[in-house]
Amino acid sequence: MTFFKIRFLPEEKTIAVEQGTTLAEAARQAGIFINNSCGGEGLCGSCRMRVLKGKTQTSALDNVFFSDQELKNGFCLACQTPAEDNLEVEITSASGNTEAQIVMAEGTLGSNQAGLVANTQPGPAAYYPFKPLARKIAIQPSPPTLKDNLPDLERIFRELRHELGWHSYDISLPALQGLALKVREPEWRLTALLVKNKDQYRIQQIEPANRIQGNYGIALDIGTTTVVAQLVDLVTGRVLGVEGVLNLQTQYGEDVIARIVYAGEKGGLDLLQQSMITNINQLIQTLTASCRINREEIHIIVAAGNTTMSHLLLGINPKFIRLEPYTPCANIYPQISAKDLGIQINTQGILELIPNVASYVGGDIVAGALACGLPDHTEVQGLIDIGTNGEIAIGNKEWLVCCSASAGPAFEGGGTRCGMRAVKGAIESLVIQNGQVAYKTIGNAKPRGLCGSGLIDCIYELKKNNLIGADAKFQRGLRDPRLLVQDQLPRYVLAWPDETEEHKPIYVNEADLANLIKSKGAVFAAIKSLVDYLGLSFNQLEHFYVAGGFGNYLDISKAIAIGLLPDMAREKISFVGNSSLTGARLALTSEMAFERCSTLAKSITHIELSNYQPYMDEYIAALFLPHTDRKLFPSVKY
Amino acid sequence: MTFFKIRFLPEEKTIAVEQGTTLAEAARQAGIFINNSCGGEGLCGSCRMRVLKGKTQTSALDNVFFSDQELKNGFCLACQTPAEDNLEVEITSASGNTEAQIVMAEGTLGSNQAGLVANTQPGPAAYYPFKPLARKIAIQPSPPTLKDNLPDLERIFRELRHELGWHSYDISLPALQGLALKVREPEWRLTALLVKNKDQYRIQQIEPANRIQGNYGIALDIGTTTVVAQLVDLVTGRVLGVEGVLNLQTQYGEDVIARIVYAGEKGGLDLLQQSMITNINQLIQTLTASCRINREEIHIIVAAGNTTMSHLLLGINPKFIRLEPYTPCANIYPQISAKDLGIQINTQGILELIPNVASYVGGDIVAGALACGLPDHTEVQGLIDIGTNGEIAIGNKEWLVCCSASAGPAFEGGGTRCGMRAVKGAIESLVIQNGQVAYKTIGNAKPRGLCGSGLIDCIYELKKNNLIGADAKFQRGLRDPRLLVQDQLPRYVLAWPDETEEHKPIYVNEADLANLIKSKGAVFAAIKSLVDYLGLSFNQLEHFYVAGGFGNYLDISKAIAIGLLPDMAREKISFVGNSSLTGARLALTSEMAFERCSTLAKSITHIELSNYQPYMDEYIAALFLPHTDRKLFPSVKY
Repeated sequence: MTFFKIRFLPEEKTIAVEQGTTLAEAARQAGIFINNSCGGEGLCGSCRMRVLKGKTQTSALDNVFFSDQELKNGFCLACQTPAEDNLEVEITSASGNTEAQIVMAEGTLGSNQAGLVANTQPGPAAYYPFKPLARKIAIQPSPPTLKDNLPDLERIFRELRHELGWHSYDISLPALQGLALKVREPEWRLTALLVKNKDQYRIQQIEPANRIQGNYGIALDIGTTTVVAQLVDLVTGRVLGVEGVLNLQTQYGEDVIARIVYAGEKGGLDLLQQSMITNINQLIQTLTASCRINREEIHIIVAAGNTTMSHLLLGINPKFIRLEPYTPCANIYPQISAKDLGIQINTQGILELIPNVASYVGGDIVAGALACGLPDHTEVQGLIDIGTNGEIAIGNKEWLVCCSASAGPAFEGGGTRCGMRAVKGAIESLVIQNGQVAYKTIGNAKPRGLCGSGLIDCIYELKKNNLIGADAKFQRGLRDPRLLVQDQLPRYVLAWPDETEEHKPIYVNEADLANLIKSKGAVFAAIKSLVDYLGLSFNQLEHFYVAGGFGNYLDISKAIAIGLLPDMAREKISFVGNSSLTGARLALTSEMAFERCSTLAKSITHIELSNYQPYMDEYIAALFLPHTDRKLFPSVKY
Repeated sequence: MTFFKIRFLPEEKTIAVEQGTTLAEAARQAGIFINNSCGGEGLCGSCRMRVLKGKTQTSALDNVFFSDQELKNGFCLACQTPAEDNLEVEITSASGNTEAQIVMAEGTLGSNQAGLVANTQPGPAAYYPFKPLARKIAIQPSPPTLKDNLPDLERIFRELRHELGWHSYDISLPALQGLALKVREPEWRLTALLVKNKDQYRIQQIEPANRIQGNYGIALDIGTTTVVAQLVDLVTGRVLGVEGVLNLQTQYGEDVIARIVYAGEKGGLDLLQQSMITNINQLIQTLTASCRINREEIHIIVAAGNTTMSHLLLGINPKFIRLEPYTPCANIYPQISAKDLGIQINTQGILELIPNVASYVGGDIVAGALACGLPDHTEVQGLIDIGTNGEIAIGNKEWLVCCSASAGPAFEGGGTRCGMRAVKGAIESLVIQNGQVAYKTIGNAKPRGLCGSGLIDCIYELKKNNLIGADAKFQRGLRDPRLLVQDQLPRYVLAWPDETEEHKPIYVNEADLANLIKSKGAVFAAIKSLVDYLGLSFNQLEHFYVAGGFGNYLDISKAIAIGLLPDMAREKISFVGNSSLTGARLALTSEMAFERCSTLAKSITHIELSNYQPYMDEYIAALFLPHTDRKLFPSVKY
């Protein structure tokens, strides 16, 4: 028996496998997650890899998925390529890679799914078969005869039962109206677009002949501050593009409480809903234009958001979310016609919302928990999604408990003078040394402000350089040319006007730092409260996933050092970017994943912190750098 | 034990019952069908009776259902009135009575449900519980607390499960949008409007407090020549009104074949569909105006029609219905949004179509079979629905076989010079004696033409008076002042210009008679063929129901004498009026009846006569009065 060594980059993991083992299987054995949504059938094209060294056989599918240039450069499908040589292979999984490129190239807010799927051990979501909520299926019912003259529609249902099993089938009026002619041209070959609703498949569209192409979906993360959309090819499972915009609702209020209050004013709810619809239509417009897709071919949107955003998107009054006993109007939403909301996709297109858990634990955390695989493992793991609200889930395949705390928009770039979203020109990381500030911006553009990860780095560096104290206030009596006072507030200049895009200085002042301390204090207090509630210690968590719109990456060590994240072994914490979006995409591309979200939302136990005294105590204790109780942060040295 | 005698009018049946037996039960024991849609709870008010002789107790419900004047006149609810005296009671069941009044007073085409339910032994449909497809239910979910803070929607679902059992529940977007405020004013009492679709109940509307009133439905019979609508109060089950109009599609073709051909022309299908929608909207407009109902309170329409009419209503191309192998596009239709069709009821209102059996056996015969109780009895019974198509069903609770034949519009008043629909001014019966014509018109108005029953009487009387021969041609050499020749065709004048509304003579000519003979021949041949196919003789049928738009009544003896109906014992044949409409109303007011239609449509065996040589032979043989084979009509004496 012959073995070959396969070395995977960028993970730098090497594994020996038997001759003929596929590269997908080799990666799995090496503990590397491969996006493989068709189940290894060579259909989805999402397990792209590039062979850097060694020889491989060509596959019949190569020309389907790769250009000649790509084939020359060694690209292949991992699931279709057997090991026949010692190889060095670079993982370039379609989804991860595409997004990363777009985030960098287009300067839009994106997610770091590549991080999510590559870095996490024992990690990510269970395997969900590729079965989009809207999918096309080519069928060939038998033509009617005098002996078997069932109606056209029942012939189609019969064929679908044969292909998909004994489900309940239905048809939309427009599909039914065109049916009789379409099924007969040519000769009883047709393609049905099926949309699942609960236990029933509805035929939304009938096309003559085999037209399996032209079926797209949108995964949507509706955040309080940002709205992000991914365009997904529902035939291949490929992510074609990702775009993010500032939530237009921010003009009516910064956080969910302000939005709920505004929704109670005359016409407020309608304005908030229309803002969100405008956002979504903008995103669709941008994505369809850049990917050259006809938006009539988008048949479904799966959206994940917090409970208030979910309510506002549908135009549901969220008033009682903020009044004791904190009751949302709904946690599980009906399937909605996109047209009824004014969302511009196919006129029969639909919108599904990932269900919520409670008033302050939304579909975003359900989607995130799914994406991070919390309910798939026996080990207890944690997830925190830091947006304008910080939502935390801890659990395993047996149980899942969650809570939320209002973090404010600081980590998404709001609430501070020079904060900005993680788009082109945002300082995403920085180091202060000897009075000099070295920073890196997204897209390597001239700086325009600081995104979440930049702000975390900033506090850390200010503290490390003793410019601020444990109370996050500037030390008195320091002399530093970057340390200025304006409006009676000390500020530290990170970039001078001549360095910046807008010729204005980029700085943080003491009010900004106070905001950031409150945000990080609220987040940490929530994590600590939940862990304590469960009778666990941080180190009993097998892994801790951090999601959020900080930027393209997050310096875990610095986030621990400022007391935002618990002081766990570094390798146990992963930054997974926009896990809500990843979960929404999983649900979009897999019926099973979508159904899992529903059962998950129902089974998660929610702890309400607003009535929980230990949380208030933890919050006060966490308003220091890193914390009033230094024993909680043994590894933090400054 | 004391017994009392109860004598029922107009049936003239007397029965002795124990003291305290309700009049409803007494009627049942006497074999008289009582409309009792609430199941004898005193809720629906449909078992109205009038006590002509004897004393009864008053009931607490009397003032709910009757005016003081009515109470003085002896009106009572049969289900709430115990026998405490010997009584003489007149049956004035709400539905039968209301319709009869409207048919007479308004001069519209109506149906003789009273006949259906009163005359049929062993007879009519099984008892279906009153559970309209759209119904309102007042519920009182518990208000949320910190310990039980389920979302509003799930509280409502929980309460509905408590009230209605473990079904799947859903909610429409508009209902969801208004939910949060409505459930809280006042204090968690609300009324939900539920619409059933397959196995799921959808909340279409939420109203604060207990607002169980204001829920109406339409039962619709979409015939090739006439469209008839009944407005039904879905709270009480009462029929509030009935209206009929000429199918506007008739301008594009007389029968279904002509319509199908026209639908194939450019824009034809759309024109035909819009004609039908216009018809329906007209009917709704008339009914809502006369009953002072807001059409926003109509939440559902249940329509029964032949397969082509069903297709045209939904805008489905019926092309292949007339091409071998005669395949409809669909037999079972999805639930349709009335708004999507342009039907002007509640914006969330829905349309359900009674399923079809085959290309030429429609939902009308399914509804009719249901209304006549064919699938409810062990005895074999028959039903013929004579419209533009004659559809025949024969069977019992074990099996049901049907076929259809093109009868032409003659019996609905089309296809003859002076034919008209059964509306005010139509001659519905006539006698010719000694050269004189005595006729009766609907509404006792001046005559305007002949409806189906008048035409049947007319042929019979012409033959009886030896004015025509067995070939339905006028005898040569007769001298009669009413017998004229115009356009080389002999004609017989039934009413002179000075007698008629329009000052034109009303007559039949030889071409009219030839048409009628073809129609009656086609109908009889179909009945005969089906009975032969089943190896039965006519007298083996326990009962034979005749439905159709002939008029308010049909002279069974004359219909037999002309060879339209088989020569069975008279008491075995009942004219039941518009059984399709009755069945549609049953389905509208009872989920179980609606579901029964679906199973019925699937289980009926269809015999295709167009490829059945015995039918062609029977047709030729039936083109005489009464028939070429006199042995088939032993009781016919002329």
